[in-house]
Amino acid sequence: MPEHTIKAFDEEINRLRGLVAEMGGRVETALEDAMAALVEHDNDKARRVVSEDRKIDLLEAEVEKLVVQIIALRAPMANDLRDVIAALKIVGVVERIGDYAKNIAKRVPQLGAHPTIEPLSLLPAMAQVAGEMVGDALNAFAARDAALAEAVVARDHVVDSFYNGIFRALLTYMVENPKTISECAHLLFIAKNIERIGDHATNMAEMVYYAATGDYLPERGRDTGIES
Amino acid sequence: MPEHTIKAFDEEINRLRGLVAEMGGRVETALEDAMAALVEHDNDKARRVVSEDRKIDLLEAEVEKLVVQIIALRAPMANDLRDVIAALKIVGVVERIGDYAKNIAKRVPQLGAHPTIEPLSLLPAMAQVAGEMVGDALNAFAARDAALAEAVVARDHVVDSFYNGIFRALLTYMVENPKTISECAHLLFIAKNIERIGDHATNMAEMVYYAATGDYLPERGRDTGIES
Repeated sequence: MPEHTIKAFDEEINRLRGLVAEMGGRVETALEDAMAALVEHDNDKARRVVSEDRKIDLLEAEVEKLVVQIIALRAPMANDLRDVIAALKIVGVVERIGDYAKNIAKRVPQLGAHPTIEPLSLLPAMAQVAGEMVGDALNAFAARDAALAEAVVARDHVVDSFYNGIFRALLTYMVENPKTISECAHLLFIAKNIERIGDHATNMAEMVYYAATGDYLPERGRDTGIES
Repeated sequence: MPEHTIKAFDEEINRLRGLVAEMGGRVETALEDAMAALVEHDNDKARRVVSEDRKIDLLEAEVEKLVVQIIALRAPMANDLRDVIAALKIVGVVERIGDYAKNIAKRVPQLGAHPTIEPLSLLPAMAQVAGEMVGDALNAFAARDAALAEAVVARDHVVDSFYNGIFRALLTYMVENPKTISECAHLLFIAKNIERIGDHATNMAEMVYYAATGDYLPERGRDTGIES
C-alpha cells in the first residue's frame, strides 16, 4: 500500500480497537454496577444499567460499519484481516455479555429491599471472576496476547464451580423454606447470567487466540461446564 | 449494479447461504451422532464425531473468506450487507456449537459400557430440543424468517428446565451412591454442553432476527437461564 494509505489504514485499525475497548469497558462497568445495585438494593443504579445498554448496542453497530469500510476500502491481508474479522465477532459476543448484565440489573427491583436470605456473598465473588475474564479477553485482543487469551479459557471452570455451588445452596434454601422460592429463583437467574458471561468471555478468548496466532486453541475441544 | 454484477452477487450470496446451511447440517448431525453414541455406548461413532469437527472449522474459514470477498468486490448495501455480516457472526456461533457436540462425544468412551445409572432418558430429550433450536435458527436465517427466530428465543427456557432437572437428579444420585460420582460428573458435563448449545442457538436466532428486520428483538433484554 502507498504510504498515506498505510497511515489511514493504521488510523482506522486503531479506531476499531478503540471502539472495541470502549465497548468492553462499558460492559465491564455494566456488570459491576448491576452487582453493586444488587448488593446495595439500589434500584436507580439498576435502572441506569438497563438504559445504558443501548449505548453498547450502538457501539456494536459502529464497529460493524467501520469493519465493512476497512475491508471494502483497504482490502487488508492475512493478520490484519484476521484482526478485523475478530473485532466484528468479538463485539457480537461483548454485546451479548452486556445483555446478561442488563438482565441482572432488571432483577434488582424485583428482589425487594429486605432479602430473607444472603447467598449474595458468593454472587459478587462469582461476578468478579467473570468480569475479570471479560476484561482479560479484551486486553488479550488489544495486545494480541495469545497467552492471556489461553489463561481466560483456563479460568472458565472457576465460574462454573461458583454457579454449581450457588445452585446447590439456593436449592437447599428453597427446600428448607418454601417462602424463599421466588427470591431464590431471582438469584438463580442472576447466577445463571453470570455463568453465561464466563462462557462468552471464554468464547471471546478463543476468537482472540485465533486472531493472534492463526491457529485454534489446543484446548479448544476441551470440556466446558461442571468440573469432574 | 450492472446486470452481470448483480448475477454474480446473487450467486455469491447463494453460495454463502449454502455454506452456512452445510455447516449447520454438519453441526446438527454431530449433536445427533454424539447423543446416539452416548446412548448406544458406541465409541467408534463418538470418535467419528470428534474427527468430523475439523470439517466444521474449515467451513467457517471458507465462509469468512467468501464474506470478505463479497464485501470487498460487491460493496453490498443495507439488507444485503446485514445478511453478509450475519452469516459471518452466525458461523462463529455454529462452530462453537460444534465444539460442544465434540465435547459430548469425547465423554462417551470415558463413561464405559455399563452405566450404573440411567438419567440418559432425559439427556437425549434435552438434546432433541436444543438440536431443533439450532436447526430452526438456521432455517430462520435461510428464509429470513424473523418470526421463526423469535420462536427459537422463546424456547431457550425449555432447555434450561431440562438442565436444572438433570442437575438435581444427578446430584441426588451422587449423594445416595457416591460410587456414581465420576459417572454423574460426566453426565453433568454433557447436560451442561447441551444447555450451552441452547443458549448459543438463542444467540444465533437474535442475530438472524436483526439481519432479517434491522431491529433488535423486543425480548432481547429478556432473562436467560432458570425459569422463575
